[in-house]
Amino acid sequence: MGSLDANCIASPRGFSPLDIDDFRQQAHQTVEFICEYYKGIESHPVVPQVEPGYLRRLLPETPSAQPMPFAKVLSEVQATVLPGMTHWTNPNFFAYFPATLSSAALCGDLLASALNPVAFNWLSSPAVTELESLTLDWLAQLIRLPKGFLFSAGGGGVLQATTSEAVLCTLVAARKMVLERAGHDGADKLVVYASDQTHSTFAKACKIAGIAPANIRIIPTAREDLFSLRPDSLRAAMEADAAAGLLPAYVCATVGTTSSTAVDPVAQLAEVAGRFGAWVHVDAAYAGSACVCPEFRHHLDGVDRVDSISMSPHKWLLTGLDCCCLWVRDRARLTTSLSTDPEYLKNRATESGLVVDYKDWQVRPSSFPHRSPTAKNSVALKLFMVMRCYGTANLQSHIRSDVRMARGFEEMVAADTRFEVVVPRRFALVCFRMRPRRAGADGEAEADAANRRLLEEVNNSGGIYATHTVIGGIYVIRFAVGTTLTEERHVKAAWELFRAKADAAWEAAQ
Amino acid sequence: MGSLDANCIASPRGFSPLDIDDFRQQAHQTVEFICEYYKGIESHPVVPQVEPGYLRRLLPETPSAQPMPFAKVLSEVQATVLPGMTHWTNPNFFAYFPATLSSAALCGDLLASALNPVAFNWLSSPAVTELESLTLDWLAQLIRLPKGFLFSAGGGGVLQATTSEAVLCTLVAARKMVLERAGHDGADKLVVYASDQTHSTFAKACKIAGIAPANIRIIPTAREDLFSLRPDSLRAAMEADAAAGLLPAYVCATVGTTSSTAVDPVAQLAEVAGRFGAWVHVDAAYAGSACVCPEFRHHLDGVDRVDSISMSPHKWLLTGLDCCCLWVRDRARLTTSLSTDPEYLKNRATESGLVVDYKDWQVRPSSFPHRSPTAKNSVALKLFMVMRCYGTANLQSHIRSDVRMARGFEEMVAADTRFEVVVPRRFALVCFRMRPRRAGADGEAEADAANRRLLEEVNNSGGIYATHTVIGGIYVIRFAVGTTLTEERHVKAAWELFRAKADAAWEAAQ
Repeated sequence: MGSLDANCIASPRGFSPLDIDDFRQQAHQTVEFICEYYKGIESHPVVPQVEPGYLRRLLPETPSAQPMPFAKVLSEVQATVLPGMTHWTNPNFFAYFPATLSSAALCGDLLASALNPVAFNWLSSPAVTELESLTLDWLAQLIRLPKGFLFSAGGGGVLQATTSEAVLCTLVAARKMVLERAGHDGADKLVVYASDQTHSTFAKACKIAGIAPANIRIIPTAREDLFSLRPDSLRAAMEADAAAGLLPAYVCATVGTTSSTAVDPVAQLAEVAGRFGAWVHVDAAYAGSACVCPEFRHHLDGVDRVDSISMSPHKWLLTGLDCCCLWVRDRARLTTSLSTDPEYLKNRATESGLVVDYKDWQVRPSSFPHRSPTAKNSVALKLFMVMRCYGTANLQSHIRSDVRMARGFEEMVAADTRFEVVVPRRFALVCFRMRPRRAGADGEAEADAANRRLLEEVNNSGGIYATHTVIGGIYVIRFAVGTTLTEERHVKAAWELFRAKADAAWEAAQ
Repeated sequence: MGSLDANCIASPRGFSPLDIDDFRQQAHQTVEFICEYYKGIESHPVVPQVEPGYLRRLLPETPSAQPMPFAKVLSEVQATVLPGMTHWTNPNFFAYFPATLSSAALCGDLLASALNPVAFNWLSSPAVTELESLTLDWLAQLIRLPKGFLFSAGGGGVLQATTSEAVLCTLVAARKMVLERAGHDGADKLVVYASDQTHSTFAKACKIAGIAPANIRIIPTAREDLFSLRPDSLRAAMEADAAAGLLPAYVCATVGTTSSTAVDPVAQLAEVAGRFGAWVHVDAAYAGSACVCPEFRHHLDGVDRVDSISMSPHKWLLTGLDCCCLWVRDRARLTTSLSTDPEYLKNRATESGLVVDYKDWQVRPSSFPHRSPTAKNSVALKLFMVMRCYGTANLQSHIRSDVRMARGFEEMVAADTRFEVVVPRRFALVCFRMRPRRAGADGEAEADAANRRLLEEVNNSGGIYATHTVIGGIYVIRFAVGTTLTEERHVKAAWELFRAKADAAWEAAQ
């Protein structure tokens, strides 16, 4: 491109980056590109065979001065980006938790990108703000949250990008609540609680909010409790802190932990926390989606006693990334801790008190366009389109289908005497391993090595991708069913792969 | 939908939310919907004529049990959502700062949504991680950042959703750096600095990070300095704090403030801050994009002496929302303050030290899928496609075209003796007002009332949308040129509207 200091010469016909005919043609090309990609999705290895730095070897070091035809850019993406992708939409992807998406979500996303509105306050985009409030009220009803979380009762929901932000915002609100009640600014006295199974998002939020590391209580869990947080352990920790003159401020309970989908007993934890006036947040990022089915809803029992709850439809409710929903029971507590009110945003709608200004509900929308949109502008629209296009009936059937497939996998594991299910499956994640061949620490160490080897071999085959965790000191393979395209045949083939490689992996690891 | 407690009956043919034929059809319908929308964009009033709560009167209170045909959902969006939109893509939108987008960005967004990858660490999506690093290196070169901000020199860039997160993350890194150097944990001694023109994102980040409100120094600016932060004012504040035993920790300088696009003198501020070992961040959210043109680059002079800089291509570089780029000069400082390292993410690529794990660069990617993607998955891809499809040549021409139109508007304002340009235009924002008709406080008060009235009348006409600010005690109309579809004729017509309504507004306001 010659010298970067030179001015570049633009196209003589002028530059119209939103020309309708160009957009129509390019968008239709992109749609066809995507259809081809999905058609061939199983032909890609799930995890790419690339070395760190591969992409810089394929693309120039400096940006191009001149435009490149759209079709050529698409071909370049095909040739350089796709080979380095971990294919999260591949039906043989069983790693982490699935990233579900759907046609309705993709179209909703595109539509919202094209509208490109910014909803930091009501006036800046009434429809987007109101759609977000309404859609969150709908979803609250779908997972049967108590009425107190609806807007009509003083609560309300907001879209956050991820659980990280949901935890951070509620932690900031809790900090303000507890310090005001205590009547002093001793932020260094605040104590927060979670189990050792809580997502690391919690530790990160504490770090960012400046909670003193010594005041973060990570309470151990045990296999005999299925790795859920014991209320008596929480009570003991809180009592000790209160006795030491500290301020118990925040409890993060999880419904469906990342490692093993353990469920903390929400009602009992809320009862304990209530005695100390601490804020209780429920992180139901993964399992919250399952609660659209009545048979899973009991996992949220006690949610009427907590202050906030978040769940992520981008995990298991077909919306694609990013879509995390946070509800609070007292919206004023959240907004007073996060609001800013600069002159250039003053307007009559806000002063009327009749509207929601989402800038005061999150980290991002500090207040001004683009620096601070409400989550991604698109999120409410795609969540709306998913709920509207599919209806509760199909969303329930989608969850049940994944659970049924996971149950099938669990049964196959249980039927093979070399294997064991380490914790009973609750949703669509199966945690399993090859059993130790002898008792004691040495047997456990052998089993860890063998299972590690097995997972490596299965993943290196390129056929599927699963991940691991270590729970209760045991190396465990996590098999998460649920990408949108996964069918029973993929689950069966995956099990065949584990089964076929088991003995050799054991031998090789010893 | 009957009772929410009942199980709903799903469609008998099964549920395939990512069926390729359905997707193709629905996506093409959506593209045509968007083309129609753009075609008719000028027929919508820029600001909608709806009352708070309008949407709830048009849509059901509860989610639907049964699916609704896709075309019907699109019609519903047309009938209920569009009438309540503030149309940010309308070429008569001159409010806030523009939200630019482009065909390449829309297609990049769609493609990334369809791939739906999650890049919390390198392994979870090598291509997405590497594309982000490379694209940020490209953009750094395009705005001529010093080499120290490139990956090859120990720096590096990361996509954040918005400036709010960029400020928050660098503030957290600064806190760690300063406390470690001081050798104690006196977080209550940290002091942060910015001007009274700094975006409220700064105050919000301080709130979230738990900086003591008493330790946030908002330094006044003056009209005679064109509202930029004076180095001597900063020095005086820092000296006083250091003398009082406090720890100057963080300075947020702005290149292109929100109210009036004022530019803080980066080099001189960095020199002052350097004496106290404070972190300097440059917020160039809006004006950073202009620096793709050599004639604007001098506004960043001195950036070689700062610790971090952020700018938002979603404002003025055609990417659509959300796309904020943050570069740091010492990436280890950022990542050590934000990293978390749970077992289920351990992998050889990370252990090799050869790769970037973006989870440690931001608020969100605490570590696990979906809870914590790298910004929106799509962002690197659309930024790549914008740079690749258009080339530097067109990006420069796009910036210059907006600046030329704003200059034309400024000249028209200056040529009408009833009006004045309040601060000289630097980029594509014109800050103007009707002049006071007599000197003194009463004259100023009259002018404020009249300008407020003028803006209301112009906006109520539905023809255009502009916003205001109060700067140096003066009510000022902000006229920001630059939505993607704006042409010279729109700018001229807008000025005609102001001109035509000026006298009547003045009379009505007195």
